[in-house]
Amino acid sequence: MSSIVPSLSHRLDGLQSSAIRDLLKLTERPDVIGLAGGLPDEQLMPRDRIALAAEAALADRSRLQYTQSAGWGPLREVLAARESARLGRTVPVEEVFVTHGSQQALSLLGEVLLDPGALVVVEDPAYVGALQVFRAAGARIVAVPLDAEGMRVEVLRELLDRGERPAVVHTVSNFHNPRGVTMSPARRRELAELADRYGFWVLEDDPYGELWFDRPSPDPVATYSPNVIRLSSASKILAPSLRAGWMVAPGVVCRGVELLKQGADLCGSALTQQITAELLADTDWLAAHVDKVRRSYGERAGALVGALRERLGHRVVSTEAAGGMFVWADFTDGTRTTELLPRAVDHGVAYVPGSAFAVGEDYGQSMRLCFTTSDGPVLREAVDRLARAVGE
Amino acid sequence: MSSIVPSLSHRLDGLQSSAIRDLLKLTERPDVIGLAGGLPDEQLMPRDRIALAAEAALADRSRLQYTQSAGWGPLREVLAARESARLGRTVPVEEVFVTHGSQQALSLLGEVLLDPGALVVVEDPAYVGALQVFRAAGARIVAVPLDAEGMRVEVLRELLDRGERPAVVHTVSNFHNPRGVTMSPARRRELAELADRYGFWVLEDDPYGELWFDRPSPDPVATYSPNVIRLSSASKILAPSLRAGWMVAPGVVCRGVELLKQGADLCGSALTQQITAELLADTDWLAAHVDKVRRSYGERAGALVGALRERLGHRVVSTEAAGGMFVWADFTDGTRTTELLPRAVDHGVAYVPGSAFAVGEDYGQSMRLCFTTSDGPVLREAVDRLARAVGE
Repeated sequence: MSSIVPSLSHRLDGLQSSAIRDLLKLTERPDVIGLAGGLPDEQLMPRDRIALAAEAALADRSRLQYTQSAGWGPLREVLAARESARLGRTVPVEEVFVTHGSQQALSLLGEVLLDPGALVVVEDPAYVGALQVFRAAGARIVAVPLDAEGMRVEVLRELLDRGERPAVVHTVSNFHNPRGVTMSPARRRELAELADRYGFWVLEDDPYGELWFDRPSPDPVATYSPNVIRLSSASKILAPSLRAGWMVAPGVVCRGVELLKQGADLCGSALTQQITAELLADTDWLAAHVDKVRRSYGERAGALVGALRERLGHRVVSTEAAGGMFVWADFTDGTRTTELLPRAVDHGVAYVPGSAFAVGEDYGQSMRLCFTTSDGPVLREAVDRLARAVGE
Repeated sequence: MSSIVPSLSHRLDGLQSSAIRDLLKLTERPDVIGLAGGLPDEQLMPRDRIALAAEAALADRSRLQYTQSAGWGPLREVLAARESARLGRTVPVEEVFVTHGSQQALSLLGEVLLDPGALVVVEDPAYVGALQVFRAAGARIVAVPLDAEGMRVEVLRELLDRGERPAVVHTVSNFHNPRGVTMSPARRRELAELADRYGFWVLEDDPYGELWFDRPSPDPVATYSPNVIRLSSASKILAPSLRAGWMVAPGVVCRGVELLKQGADLCGSALTQQITAELLADTDWLAAHVDKVRRSYGERAGALVGALRERLGHRVVSTEAAGGMFVWADFTDGTRTTELLPRAVDHGVAYVPGSAFAVGEDYGQSMRLCFTTSDGPVLREAVDRLARAVGE
């Protein structure tokens, strides 16, 4: 008997795999120095401290059980205390919601905050994971460019003046992925004022804020308005496999997210959430640990930016590396980074072309370079290879 | 300055928290014997074996890193081998997809398989987590009743004869939650034939299949048709906090689920996935462990059903407890279980009224009783209290 094959949903039409992920597959050759990835350095992750915490967590059998959809209570309490300190106000536990990485917070918020056709403003270039969420929600997406001070809020203001009414404005406020920049305090205040005046949600997506090199990140946008939902994660300071992200949001938003989380995956893991809570609560240890990550990444970023200026400064302009995981560089000599990539890989170095993050602009002469997983000499060798690939 | 509060999505309208979860909150008084929950017994979870596996997993730092969206490779291989044995055919790794509990598989499949307005056939009474997913997908839901042999496939056939064309038919084929019954081999074959003839997907949701007491569960529905997507989980045989569920589905479905998983939460935890893989691959240990769980649950189920018959047999009919975690019982004397519940809680026992799972029918005189977390004497005491609550 021949059988009829059932069909798939139209939701899949046009949905494409992340360009970055596909590229990563192509550039995983062991002889290629990978600046294309976006991974924190596993050598800097606190393996022994996690093992201790795992042992402690498993002493209590209830850590093997299902937990609350909003997150294991003691983790929410630790996060509420941390966020209270960061925001300068008391954040009640009810306004903290634990998710499976901050990507899940974005995804559930996309459903809670957006009706199909709603306007979402993103930064250009954009964090691709956010674009995926907003596209899946059927949002209309408008991009506002970034400069050295972060989102160009005056462009957002022009949009609003023209009568556009976004439901959500998304920003990676600190050490932007991919653009490397941090929003200035003045722009943060301005963005918050616009959110209050026009009644939109700001999603302040902040996985990198603690990874500053020389001076702490500015006060969060959420300091200035109740209309800001803050997202962060333990992936970049502890370990991605804890899958611990969180959001700070008004109770009504958290309750909406809770309803959707029950259908999405019931709850997170009490085991990895207790490990996360123990490490975040061990404040002296945590301060020393994060400091070590900062120092290593700072040295690597310095080596990468230094080599770019020394070897390619006459044809490449790059961001200052003040924190986070990425440097953004623009060719000023007309080099197209998508065309250059295969030649670069042949020379043993990989990056992500700017076009992978482009929304409104082209970014055809730009590239994102990740400095987290290579040390100084390797990064300098990577830039040498890049120079040879462009014919130096 | 007064600020304008942004609004929430209309998707939340009418979305309600799971009735079971809300009820659980009300019945968590320590003096109440809880037969309302749906949790496996944490005392039977292999804590020491998990601790060993956690130590082994943490010996490799790469277990702290992000992993593949489709799941950590070696876990997919272990699952492919297990499912090959279960299905009697070689299941390629590409057809195995690891999710954050099988609830996430349901949720992502809801998006991959269903357009708004698509027809979904569920069993009545239904697994509430599946209903949440299908409602969120905007599906039109039609219920087919269950009897002692599982889904009444002849009712589905009548629907098809009348011209209804479901996109998806959902079944909990073994030890149904909440109804306790198992679909007979003849009905499995019949359902698979209908799927082939009419081109719909069968979601065979099978978290309880290994928890049989006297004889193994019948061959899966997926044995009989390529149009069946099989879902299962480590939550009921190992531990929920591993958050390891999986599906076996054609490659085209897995690729759709992968695209959505990237946006939903990027990936699972390499740490808990390695723990799960190690335990599932340790076949001698696993066989002994699952056997122990079976024996305990079998004794408890026997005690509960025995007490129901002895104390309430003249006014209550219950399922045979052949496996799984639940007994379904119907009052034959007109007792309304929703009205009885507050009185039952006053007498120190809680259950879930049948109406919480009802789709088409009423089930007003039914209740679901979970026997997993109480031993024989406690279960007999629970039935005594229930008998006093109905005025015996």
